Amino acid sequence: MTTPTPSDKAFVPFVSVDHMMQLIHHIGVPQMLRGLADYIEEDFRRWQLFDKTPRVASHSAEGVIELMPTSDGEVYGFKYVNGHPSNTAEGLQTVTAFGLLADVASGYPVLLSEMTMLTALRTAATSALVARVLAPEGATCMAMIGNGAQSEFQSLAMQAICGITEVRLFDIDPAATRKCAANLAGSGLNVVACGSAEEAILGAQIITTCTADKQYATILTDNMIGAGVHINAIGGDCPGKTELAPAILHRAEIFVEYPEQTRIEGEIQQLGDDHPVTEFWQVLSGDAPGRRSPEQITLFDSVGFAIEDFSALRYVRDNIRGTALFHPLDLLADPDDPRDLFGMLQRAKG
Amino acid sequence: MTTPTPSDKAFVPFVSVDHMMQLIHHIGVPQMLRGLADYIEEDFRRWQLFDKTPRVASHSAEGVIELMPTSDGEVYGFKYVNGHPSNTAEGLQTVTAFGLLADVASGYPVLLSEMTMLTALRTAATSALVARVLAPEGATCMAMIGNGAQSEFQSLAMQAICGITEVRLFDIDPAATRKCAANLAGSGLNVVACGSAEEAILGAQIITTCTADKQYATILTDNMIGAGVHINAIGGDCPGKTELAPAILHRAEIFVEYPEQTRIEGEIQQLGDDHPVTEFWQVLSGDAPGRRSPEQITLFDSVGFAIEDFSALRYVRDNIRGTALFHPLDLLADPDDPRDLFGMLQRAKG
Repeated sequence: MTTPTPSDKAFVPFVSVDHMMQLIHHIGVPQMLRGLADYIEEDFRRWQLFDKTPRVASHSAEGVIELMPTSDGEVYGFKYVNGHPSNTAEGLQTVTAFGLLADVASGYPVLLSEMTMLTALRTAATSALVARVLAPEGATCMAMIGNGAQSEFQSLAMQAICGITEVRLFDIDPAATRKCAANLAGSGLNVVACGSAEEAILGAQIITTCTADKQYATILTDNMIGAGVHINAIGGDCPGKTELAPAILHRAEIFVEYPEQTRIEGEIQQLGDDHPVTEFWQVLSGDAPGRRSPEQITLFDSVGFAIEDFSALRYVRDNIRGTALFHPLDLLADPDDPRDLFGMLQRAKG
Repeated sequence: MTTPTPSDKAFVPFVSVDHMMQLIHHIGVPQMLRGLADYIEEDFRRWQLFDKTPRVASHSAEGVIELMPTSDGEVYGFKYVNGHPSNTAEGLQTVTAFGLLADVASGYPVLLSEMTMLTALRTAATSALVARVLAPEGATCMAMIGNGAQSEFQSLAMQAICGITEVRLFDIDPAATRKCAANLAGSGLNVVACGSAEEAILGAQIITTCTADKQYATILTDNMIGAGVHINAIGGDCPGKTELAPAILHRAEIFVEYPEQTRIEGEIQQLGDDHPVTEFWQVLSGDAPGRRSPEQITLFDSVGFAIEDFSALRYVRDNIRGTALFHPLDLLADPDDPRDLFGMLQRAKG
């Protein structure tokens, strides 16, 4: 490794929203979802290496702003992300995000990237990676309950990574279902718009819930869930926001990312602190069983964890190399003599 | 207040290093230091309003990367900052930083800014604000021990805000002292280069220490400190990094920013957890006394706190208005229909 000159390090590669969208199309949506899932799997397999901490949340009446840092000892990463359910009514995104990677040895940032798009992809890639491991064998059909911004990404990831061929859509707002179905036309998926959650889950081996209300909601009730399904619950992701009836949780084998965070933010905030859960990385590493029978109900109580963002940023860093899909951002003051910051300022005068 | 359109919100004003330097010269260094001190004082006076938390630190053998968030309930801010003492030997900055403000109600970022330059100014402005309140009346001379990147800013802030007329420089590296003295030529300060710390403190009513070793160092010993001085200790700012002999701490009245953080990172990590300290904001609000006699030794055990960065970012946000000193950064994906993120991606194709 050569030592970069100060001028190299003063400019941080920045991936804008426009560049991210170009990168996604350059790679291809299914290819990128699979690539992200590979990076996430790689990092889950070295889970114990990472500095892990529950995200640092700043709650307000309207929503939450969070910082999600982690490090593998060589690279540091964090994501800024908000969650504001009422934003939709104002014509704004519920979730926006950006993220950063830095070199642990010097502390210098090495990548700044939009992460609203990227989070949508990494969330879907994580869900599909988990479903590939936990869903019943031969799963071909997913119910997608909640047809908002995440729904197409979930559907395409389950297609690209788990091989599903049919997606059954339901949303309390039919316009959302129409939007999702239109966006999935041409994907190769058989898309079925449904009039109720009950209709959507008919014949589905994978049930994904992704609704956005910040309140205890019950999207799935106990009598709706038969044996052998895999539930991918991604909408419950902060205190007070859940989607599943507690009775379902008691019948399911529950898999989580990072229990310390999920017990605060996930579906299991409805259960006792000692309710047994399995950390998904342990299934990958062979330290814990995954699905043990065709009849079992498996539940991925997903809230999103910093390591997934770290993996996604690593993927972007590696895949923008050799492309023009980033700007060098003048983010760091880096004088020739590091003790002469003031001299740098003086020389900039006039 | 008008509601911005989505396209307004998708672009975040970004202040680069170059723009920050232009802004500083546009305003003037002394004027900006005074302006920053005013904003910091304003926020210290409404201290109890803020969400406060010790910074989130990721330590490694080489240094530390930190996130420093805070919020006043309407605006959220955080700073990314590293501290890597060994960077100087590699030709890199010990400290680099950037920061962000966001709207609490929507979670949308409203400002991204370089903060390496800005942190240098806000640190100096904070030191001088505190010294203006705590230093003995009629103080005209400061000893500046450690002549690195922060030294000129400290000297100019003490001149602009406290009215000092002389600065006495010492560094174990004479080249650093020469650099600092050269940079201060033309400032109007009487600059005296000294051959030892003992010589530097002769006649000084304010003693500033700012050295960068990550180890327990003793820059000032007990016998060097006479009655009635104000010590501005800014170099001790992480676990294991201190500059003052414990005996000095026992003779001084100690003022801090946020005790929960200072007890971990400041000079007082050398003392018991119950050693009495005064929070500086309480002096401003009248809830606690400042200097009580001309003979008293006052010590500002400064480690830098998130609210100071928040104030500095507020100042920048207010002062770039009407200038061209920022770029609109394409940081946020903001589709016309917030639920149609995928549609936005599709429309970007080709």
